[in-house]
Amino acid sequence: MNGNRFGRLFQVTTFGESHGEAMGCTVSGCPAGLELSEEDIQADLDRRKPGQSMITTSRGEPDDVSIKSGIQDGYTTGTPIGMVIQNKDARSGKYEPFITAPRPSHGDFTYSAKFGTRNWGGGGRSSARETVNWVAAGAIAKKLLAREGIELKAHVNQIGDVEAPEVSFEDLLEHSEDNDVRCAHPETAAEMQELIEEYQEEGDSIGGSIYFEARGVPVGLGAPRFDSLSARLGQAMMAVPATTAFEFGLGREAREWTGKDRNDDWEFDDAGNPTPVENDHGGIQGGISSGEPIYGEVTLHAPTSIPKSQQTADWETGELTEEQVIGRHDPVLPPRGVPVVEAMLALTLVDFMLLSGRLNPDRVDDQPGEYDTDYHPSNPNNE
Amino acid sequence: MNGNRFGRLFQVTTFGESHGEAMGCTVSGCPAGLELSEEDIQADLDRRKPGQSMITTSRGEPDDVSIKSGIQDGYTTGTPIGMVIQNKDARSGKYEPFITAPRPSHGDFTYSAKFGTRNWGGGGRSSARETVNWVAAGAIAKKLLAREGIELKAHVNQIGDVEAPEVSFEDLLEHSEDNDVRCAHPETAAEMQELIEEYQEEGDSIGGSIYFEARGVPVGLGAPRFDSLSARLGQAMMAVPATTAFEFGLGREAREWTGKDRNDDWEFDDAGNPTPVENDHGGIQGGISSGEPIYGEVTLHAPTSIPKSQQTADWETGELTEEQVIGRHDPVLPPRGVPVVEAMLALTLVDFMLLSGRLNPDRVDDQPGEYDTDYHPSNPNNE
Amino acid sequence: MNGNRFGRLFQVTTFGESHGEAMGCTVSGCPAGLELSEEDIQADLDRRKPGQSMITTSRGEPDDVSIKSGIQDGYTTGTPIGMVIQNKDARSGKYEPFITAPRPSHGDFTYSAKFGTRNWGGGGRSSARETVNWVAAGAIAKKLLAREGIELKAHVNQIGDVEAPEVSFEDLLEHSEDNDVRCAHPETAAEMQELIEEYQEEGDSIGGSIYFEARGVPVGLGAPRFDSLSARLGQAMMAVPATTAFEFGLGREAREWTGKDRNDDWEFDDAGNPTPVENDHGGIQGGISSGEPIYGEVTLHAPTSIPKSQQTADWETGELTEEQVIGRHDPVLPPRGVPVVEAMLALTLVDFMLLSGRLNPDRVDDQPGEYDTDYHPSNPNNE
Amino acid sequence: MNGNRFGRLFQVTTFGESHGEAMGCTVSGCPAGLELSEEDIQADLDRRKPGQSMITTSRGEPDDVSIKSGIQDGYTTGTPIGMVIQNKDARSGKYEPFITAPRPSHGDFTYSAKFGTRNWGGGGRSSARETVNWVAAGAIAKKLLAREGIELKAHVNQIGDVEAPEVSFEDLLEHSEDNDVRCAHPETAAEMQELIEEYQEEGDSIGGSIYFEARGVPVGLGAPRFDSLSARLGQAMMAVPATTAFEFGLGREAREWTGKDRNDDWEFDDAGNPTPVENDHGGIQGGISSGEPIYGEVTLHAPTSIPKSQQTADWETGELTEEQVIGRHDPVLPPRGVPVVEAMLALTLVDFMLLSGRLNPDRVDDQPGEYDTDYHPSNPNNE
Repeated sequence: MNGNRFGRLFQVTTFGESHGEAMGCTVSGCPAGLELSEEDIQADLDRRKPGQSMITTSRGEPDDVSIKSGIQDGYTTGTPIGMVIQNKDARSGKYEPFITAPRPSHGDFTYSAKFGTRNWGGGGRSSARETVNWVAAGAIAKKLLAREGIELKAHVNQIGDVEAPEVSFEDLLEHSEDNDVRCAHPETAAEMQELIEEYQEEGDSIGGSIYFEARGVPVGLGAPRFDSLSARLGQAMMAVPATTAFEFGLGREAREWTGKDRNDDWEFDDAGNPTPVENDHGGIQGGISSGEPIYGEVTLHAPTSIPKSQQTADWETGELTEEQVIGRHDPVLPPRGVPVVEAMLALTLVDFMLLSGRLNPDRVDDQPGEYDTDYHPSNPNNE
Repeated sequence: MNGNRFGRLFQVTTFGESHGEAMGCTVSGCPAGLELSEEDIQADLDRRKPGQSMITTSRGEPDDVSIKSGIQDGYTTGTPIGMVIQNKDARSGKYEPFITAPRPSHGDFTYSAKFGTRNWGGGGRSSARETVNWVAAGAIAKKLLAREGIELKAHVNQIGDVEAPEVSFEDLLEHSEDNDVRCAHPETAAEMQELIEEYQEEGDSIGGSIYFEARGVPVGLGAPRFDSLSARLGQAMMAVPATTAFEFGLGREAREWTGKDRNDDWEFDDAGNPTPVENDHGGIQGGISSGEPIYGEVTLHAPTSIPKSQQTADWETGELTEEQVIGRHDPVLPPRGVPVVEAMLALTLVDFMLLSGRLNPDRVDDQPGEYDTDYHPSNPNNE
Repeated sequence: MNGNRFGRLFQVTTFGESHGEAMGCTVSGCPAGLELSEEDIQADLDRRKPGQSMITTSRGEPDDVSIKSGIQDGYTTGTPIGMVIQNKDARSGKYEPFITAPRPSHGDFTYSAKFGTRNWGGGGRSSARETVNWVAAGAIAKKLLAREGIELKAHVNQIGDVEAPEVSFEDLLEHSEDNDVRCAHPETAAEMQELIEEYQEEGDSIGGSIYFEARGVPVGLGAPRFDSLSARLGQAMMAVPATTAFEFGLGREAREWTGKDRNDDWEFDDAGNPTPVENDHGGIQGGISSGEPIYGEVTLHAPTSIPKSQQTADWETGELTEEQVIGRHDPVLPPRGVPVVEAMLALTLVDFMLLSGRLNPDRVDDQPGEYDTDYHPSNPNNE
Repeated sequence: MNGNRFGRLFQVTTFGESHGEAMGCTVSGCPAGLELSEEDIQADLDRRKPGQSMITTSRGEPDDVSIKSGIQDGYTTGTPIGMVIQNKDARSGKYEPFITAPRPSHGDFTYSAKFGTRNWGGGGRSSARETVNWVAAGAIAKKLLAREGIELKAHVNQIGDVEAPEVSFEDLLEHSEDNDVRCAHPETAAEMQELIEEYQEEGDSIGGSIYFEARGVPVGLGAPRFDSLSARLGQAMMAVPATTAFEFGLGREAREWTGKDRNDDWEFDDAGNPTPVENDHGGIQGGISSGEPIYGEVTLHAPTSIPKSQQTADWETGELTEEQVIGRHDPVLPPRGVPVVEAMLALTLVDFMLLSGRLNPDRVDDQPGEYDTDYHPSNPNNE
């Protein structure tokens, strides 16, 4: 409602501004009995954190997560997991010129207009820094999904006009972390890197896109109509900062395909169940998962904060001015956006797993509603 | 949660299957004092209804809406508006072959797998017939928005590889209803019509897309992060049956634009407020409306029900069979999808108008929270 | 949010005014595979309907429910169940004097003040007639609960100062429908009847209370803190029209008990699990069900519409007037409130059964998430 | 859903266990422009904190709140307010005997049964310590309400069989903090204190109740039916730990009143608007506020943790044992419950103020939807 919550049964609530004291995230609805440590979460945070390479902002944030609640002896207890991440390298001074002179196409103006004020340091709440919370929550979701045999992965499949060829899911898993761009196709990654550096040198920035895929999603996730898997994925992905397009399956291209070509005939799988011959439908039929891989793409526009000179209008002085955004900024978003997209995919899927009753909302390891005295505090893993 | 509800303050709840007795829709959260009649709603239902032209299904449904509650003396009372639309021309028999032999890429299989059963006549709940409810609710939303100076319109901008050039908002308003395709560019409409008929004759179907635009949306709609205007539009539009892509502003193309090119400089408008020089951002910045027109596109894949022979797997007999979907079906979806997309746009915007307090949730015409004895049952329009 | 929805996974949405065309209720979230007919629902509606005895209003409403969707071959399909109940005996004319002269302690004034208008016939949306929808939805919830071994029942335990002694659950089940008052203790029922008739003759009305009890509720329903079973029951019961108090367990009396006296020691049950020796805690500990019977009371104030002369203030004329409410009204609410309280109890419990994963949200009969090709449309009962 | 969230537009999310590292609370939906400091919140936390008198637990917690986000230059920014309160004096060792031997009538058993585990130190998440979060959030709600002229206050009106006479709202405001019991009637307070000490010495505990009242609530808050003001207050208050009864207006007593006696006639107020002669209806008619004071009572049972010997059943050893709860515990709950009840009242009312549009959800000081360039970051108070 107010924008700071995501999920229906697996509920994420976040706080924090880019240059505030701390970022924070509460995960309510994680079942009890999941083995979980700060390290599990840190791994994904490190993939998102600033300063990790030459093509990211140089802001130095360790992004160390501290879990404040919801864990006992290394296992979740079913109660909310409170997490806090301190902001350590905030230098707000550089943003002072923009307090009343909004940066072009940034959230500066709209936030100020809506709230009559805004936290102006580093973009405040509108900054993509806030996605550190999403990634923390997403790491927990991924761990739950992995127990159920659901694997998911994303990589950068386009930067500017440099487009990666299709890569296998295995390549995604193995190679998307091999380079700073997070593209699982090494030759393309090199080209992308070159292009990014070019724009970076010019004081400009460039757009790109992220491809995602999930395997092992069972048949039957999603609800009819307004809560279809595609609708909920649409919300999740369009919430990713700078996103201007969401597609799944054939995506935008589907407009040029005939029914006969796009339709996937049915055959039987080894277990004798109907299974589609192909997967042009992207793993979702009638809004509900078909058991085939779910895949799609998210387009992220170029970062709006650029050193190149731009014109803005100062609402206090009433004057037009030229401005250069000198802060430390990314020249391109997808490389750091990969774990964010994965997080939103994981959060969406884990929610549907809970909603469908496939995941016991009270505790992992058991059938829903089982009552088991052997399963108790001194024996959280039911051994 | 279960897929049958949309909206947070302007709440739509629907029921009904394609070949059931009736479709129904309850709108809760419409303020009191809005002049409303069945005719207001019927106009949009007629744009969506089947059998309206040669390029739609020949099923004959008058889609007459009957309002059961929430209106008194022609004005809304602030209590829920219950609407029922009878199904009159259902012929389920033709679907019997598909009960256990799912149509390719339709919801037949996934619904059956999820629920262990499904209403199989005409696609049951998974049928796009259900959007008749959305259009009914959307018509009320449009009326509320119009009072606030918000106008919105959609048209078909691509069918197969036939793409319309950009058209002005004025042309959208005036010409999108001029032809059966609902494309506001008459020459393109003719080409589209020809293409559709071609596929129809072949027993095939074809995809397409819908362009939408809203004008007069005030600055400041939308919430940070997960409830951004783009995220909520994403959910709304991805819920439209057969949708595989949602884009706003530059959409998918934004991946190839630089920051400098895409960023919209600021100037002052006549009232001395900052206003963007261009609108490459599509009316949304930082997830919040900028006051510029909101525009985007929705891609709809080709209808899956086609007369051409396809292979399916009958889970009862365990045999592969060839099937032809003989029922009455659309060869293309966008022409009837136009009012559906408009409805989802209107429902999303009216919800944000209520959430922002710009629309008084209790009654139109007044400032929120005003208490006014002159405004009473015998004087619903406050005269 | 707007008051017309109840439930989180088992979602009820209602419409309708006392003297409008029809009442309606949509139940979304009922799993597929439940055998269900209009007769199942009608039984409870008949217990609530007006004109059933001399101590209820004489308005003649058959309250015949018509199911419009969500059922196929006598079984639910997992899609929303739309129900409509026509209003047949509305005579609004008698309410005209009250349009601008609000009845004392009724919702006339507050509805008009909030919405600036109201449907004035028979109390419109504020009328307890609206609970016909709740009872319809509750009947479905009861059927689901019964499959899980959960039984629930209510009866009238006090009218004015006539209080029934404690009765056993077996007596509740067997005798609460034996008399017009719906008190399971026959001698008390006779006294109550006499008292009610006395007030009826005087043109006055009288308050009372309803006792409810649920058996077979498994251990572990309810969530910590804000969504405790007691909190959600509190909302459910306080929503019942005319309710001024909700109590469970020792209720209000608990204020006078010591910890030692109220605390229930633990022993072992036959299966070797801890079980409380007594049930002063009313089946809920720490907000979560303990496996013991859940019981409590709801107090309903006297009906506000009485023939006795009362003073009101006409906001149109600006004059004080004496008014007598001549319409057909109940002299006491609990007898017809019994099925309403049962419905709210059932709706609350079924929601928690779904939320805990004990009920498969997709279909009855199966473990959540099972995928089973034998369970299909031509075999809805999985035989 | 999972119990850790409260509120619809004014959204509270909490985390933390009694003996965990920290408690935390995120408030999302507080409008921008409210002057707010940690001191504002601390004042109420100090009223709830342990160790404040001889009749509370001796646990020593300063309960210092630290605001992590959502504030700039002393004013709220409209973005979520993250708050953290460290736990400093946790001594879990004393609870070890109870890990598998549940304390009578505590949440020990039900939490373990539900989650298969629990944080056992000091009651973990089921501990009333968690209400520190509620009080922190409630303090913000109170500040918002005060701006709108809404004042609210609670006091202890009964302990055991010692009952306070009715006190005026002015006395509530002035005298409820005069004594350790928090009873605004000094003579009764002394008696209560004596009674509490008596039970404390015996190693027992005692129940009691809290009276609450709100003044200045405008006409028209609350929604029809399921979201009536009374229903939402019912949920809020029944969530307060140890609560077994909620009443408003005449409460439980209403069952013995006739319609004629309970109904409040109408007269005109000085402004010529209808106003009730009395307030037996407790400020709520038809579920919606009437403009009269809202008042009611909450019954809290005796604390379950008592030094007196009790029998429990150890599910690990399978043996019955006698146990004495040696930890530091309150002999009575209402004195520290007063700020908790006030918090839940404030949270409920502020939510309805936002839902009704009376409070601008985006920022205080302005009419909803106003767009005002003078109101900006360097001028948060619009001066």
